[in-house]
Amino acid sequence: MEAVEIITTKRDGGRLSDEQIDWVIAAYVDGQVAHEQMSALAMAILLRGMDRAEIRRWTDAMIASGDRLQLTGLDRPTADKHSTGGVGDKITLPLAPAVAACGAAVPQLSGRGLGHTGGTLDKLESINGWRASITDDELRAQLRDVGAVICAANERLVPADRLLYALRDVTGTVESIPLIASSIMSKKIAEGTGSLVLDVKVGSGAFMKHVEDARELARTMVALGEDHGVRTVALITDMATPLGLTAGNALEVAESLEVLEGGGPPDVVELTVALGREMLTAAGVTGGKDPADALSDGTAMDVWRRMITAQGGDPDAPLPSARETDAVLVPADGVLVRLDAMAVGVAAWRLGAGRARKEDPVQAAAGVVLHAKPGAKVRAGEPLFTLHTDEPERFERARAALEDAYEVAPERSRPEDRPLVLDRVDAASLG
Amino acid sequence: MEAVEIITTKRDGGRLSDEQIDWVIAAYVDGQVAHEQMSALAMAILLRGMDRAEIRRWTDAMIASGDRLQLTGLDRPTADKHSTGGVGDKITLPLAPAVAACGAAVPQLSGRGLGHTGGTLDKLESINGWRASITDDELRAQLRDVGAVICAANERLVPADRLLYALRDVTGTVESIPLIASSIMSKKIAEGTGSLVLDVKVGSGAFMKHVEDARELARTMVALGEDHGVRTVALITDMATPLGLTAGNALEVAESLEVLEGGGPPDVVELTVALGREMLTAAGVTGGKDPADALSDGTAMDVWRRMITAQGGDPDAPLPSARETDAVLVPADGVLVRLDAMAVGVAAWRLGAGRARKEDPVQAAAGVVLHAKPGAKVRAGEPLFTLHTDEPERFERARAALEDAYEVAPERSRPEDRPLVLDRVDAASLG
Repeated sequence: MEAVEIITTKRDGGRLSDEQIDWVIAAYVDGQVAHEQMSALAMAILLRGMDRAEIRRWTDAMIASGDRLQLTGLDRPTADKHSTGGVGDKITLPLAPAVAACGAAVPQLSGRGLGHTGGTLDKLESINGWRASITDDELRAQLRDVGAVICAANERLVPADRLLYALRDVTGTVESIPLIASSIMSKKIAEGTGSLVLDVKVGSGAFMKHVEDARELARTMVALGEDHGVRTVALITDMATPLGLTAGNALEVAESLEVLEGGGPPDVVELTVALGREMLTAAGVTGGKDPADALSDGTAMDVWRRMITAQGGDPDAPLPSARETDAVLVPADGVLVRLDAMAVGVAAWRLGAGRARKEDPVQAAAGVVLHAKPGAKVRAGEPLFTLHTDEPERFERARAALEDAYEVAPERSRPEDRPLVLDRVDAASLG
Repeated sequence: MEAVEIITTKRDGGRLSDEQIDWVIAAYVDGQVAHEQMSALAMAILLRGMDRAEIRRWTDAMIASGDRLQLTGLDRPTADKHSTGGVGDKITLPLAPAVAACGAAVPQLSGRGLGHTGGTLDKLESINGWRASITDDELRAQLRDVGAVICAANERLVPADRLLYALRDVTGTVESIPLIASSIMSKKIAEGTGSLVLDVKVGSGAFMKHVEDARELARTMVALGEDHGVRTVALITDMATPLGLTAGNALEVAESLEVLEGGGPPDVVELTVALGREMLTAAGVTGGKDPADALSDGTAMDVWRRMITAQGGDPDAPLPSARETDAVLVPADGVLVRLDAMAVGVAAWRLGAGRARKEDPVQAAAGVVLHAKPGAKVRAGEPLFTLHTDEPERFERARAALEDAYEVAPERSRPEDRPLVLDRVDAASLG
């Protein structure tokens, strides 16, 4: 088979055959198809699209490039969650233990952050001793004994995605719904979860800026999951403003601990509970404990402590704190009516919480603390944000990112009322 | 500047700025922009297009990647010709000496063949001792003393095109009018010719299958030439059937010699004369000798002999002949009404006359001889094609290529009457 023929087929708006898809992905992983050929194909796919059968086959071929994890021998059904990424999105941290406390097993294979959104593994690595890499046997044992695992995917899981993701990142071919959906779903299907809840973010701080795009991505992923026997549900959730009051690795762990202690910001609690209920329903665990109760009665915290300990972490160790802090003050009395997620994400990134290239390190303690959320009354001269970093030369560019990030309006104003969960897509919605 | 931003601008249908174009081409030649980034950009350009100003700047940036040749100090104006490539297209061989014999200097920097169309340099290399590579000083001296040079472009002329051409060939991004036009015109402008005649081929054996595409390519190239002070004219010519009666390196040299002796196939003579007259007019050499006369009075042959000798070739050495030949016979009495250029080109290629990869060698003597052209009466059992090769195992695939290549109809039939020159585009036609 010839790479050029496959590229020109898609370039000219044609369908790729099953054989073409299988060959091109296997040959790319082998090195027979060059990076420049795959990037041309990715651009053609981005501009021409793929139909449902092509996306399904593409996902199958990605999965077939590596091993599949076997999560057999558990006494409970499995449920996983994936978020398309947002600012301050620490939901996995309280969610996995809460759902485990309610009776499902949660195998959460996660990634590191790139750009303005943080990575779950980066956050957990701010806990002293905790390690992201565990063996498949350790993963299965921990799922059985603790009920929840958050860890790095092993290198043999969907190697095609590892290559493709790095390629798309540098070739302007990230923003393709078929490629995003197959990237996410190939990993989730290969990890062997029985059910999956997707948190598809929409808004300034998310990858998808428009709800229609988010809906299309959600539908594409739900179809892929169902086609592969994974019960899949998606919530489309708002990412116009950050989740909770923190963006940054250790800062978000601290906030997650508040939630696990039965407190924490209402939006983080609301989304944790909503996603947790969906996970339990998708896994077929019904009539048992509610995730809200698991957060308030301490059972989720028990699972958290065992989960962290099982991966070498010390749940009682103090979290790192930044060497320097700096405040951004409220300019005038009034009501905070807008607080832009993307700007806060960029500020946290510039403070050292995120990375520009995948080989860059991150600062555990860097980030932004918000002192108000949209709708809150604010007073001139009080802090609006506190910036945290180990390198004070970073403050200036972080402050610049926040310059147009917020709006304070006269006392009587109210921000636009926007629900956190905007829509829900499941197999029945596919029609 | 960031490659990804440039790629996404074009991907989303935007215009590239002058600065973006200058940067991306210079950075690609430097190695700062990776092949996979340039191939994604090439695919975006292919699918989104570029406007006249973008194509002009792109061409300028390509030229700026290398040196420009200075053809100063000549006592005559310069005229060059470029063909977009067809089967049996040996026109450069009689044309360059014929035009030189009429008073213009012809600097013909040529390429090698890839795929089913032959390369001018490959053809001339079948002449014992002839060498394609000469220095710039030798080129200028030969132009002054002989009036015509056919040689390889030196490595410093448009290095960006060398890279881009190889990249486009393997990434399905060849068929883009802006990229084809800038590739051809950057080299012709950099070589320093004062005027240029383009032979834009259309038909089965050509790159452009439809006359509208050929016209758009012609208009794009004429605009580029005129924008750079090169008087440029394009003829759009038919490539539904091969030019002349031969396709293959030494076979085409032999046929060119017939034309230089005042004979040869009528279509080869007609196109040589038509292009020669355009070159002389474009160069401002008017009222002198006509190219038809230069062919019949032996003055073109004199230039040919001096041109070949100046580059180390022996114009009297016998041309190589193939070790094996095989005939394809006429199946029934009648009139040959169709003879497909592409099929003949593929057959010659499979016999060893062409190459699949640029590092492959070619056979000097391999190729196809036609015994009839459309419109001719043919008799069952007479040879229709003679196949030439040094490797008889190649006959079978060559014969397969020719299977549906022709049509013999009852005696009274006539093929569709199609002129050789279909259209003409010059600065005035751009409107």
